[in-house]
Amino acid sequence: MIKVSVMYPAGADSRFDMDYYLGTHIPLVRRTLGAALKGVAVEQGLGGGEPGSPPTYAAVGHLLFDSVEAFQEAFAPHAGTITGDVPNYTNVEPTLQISEVKL
Amino acid sequence: MIKVSVMYPAGADSRFDMDYYLGTHIPLVRRTLGAALKGVAVEQGLGGGEPGSPPTYAAVGHLLFDSVEAFQEAFAPHAGTITGDVPNYTNVEPTLQISEVKL
Repeated sequence: MIKVSVMYPAGADSRFDMDYYLGTHIPLVRRTLGAALKGVAVEQGLGGGEPGSPPTYAAVGHLLFDSVEAFQEAFAPHAGTITGDVPNYTNVEPTLQISEVKL
Repeated sequence: MIKVSVMYPAGADSRFDMDYYLGTHIPLVRRTLGAALKGVAVEQGLGGGEPGSPPTYAAVGHLLFDSVEAFQEAFAPHAGTITGDVPNYTNVEPTLQISEVKL
């Protein structure tokens, strides 16, 4: 199983609309990726390691797929639709990481 | 539910022993944090968003707790034991983020 983590950096000028993300963007992702998408998790950053410090990421979305190939095949035909919706909920460029789920 | 994500940056000189992490460090974390720890997930970075690009993090460990307070209370008495084991599997300083689980 692989996990695609889409991490939205926090910052003084950054904006992230969690309601839109949960209510519109994630449903769009589910609808377009279909059965290839094996799971979704969403987190909102609260803080860093030191008490009172800011989080590195304002929000993170995790998408699970059977393999990197399954992700690429499902995502490619809908890349424009999905990435075109991003400015509707944030003004920051997300950092994307693909990981192997070990546990 | 909150998630504590411990993210180990990838880099040319960075070292991360996944076998030790899964076989020794995570069991130590489970043993010391006890029932306050509601779940554990571990990922190994494969790549970034662009094909062939490196991952931001070599590895990420996620720990679930009922609340920030539950995490702090469980972690504080064992902080030295847990952080003291880190040099046994990596030479990088992890970035820590506390997040609220939204989905």
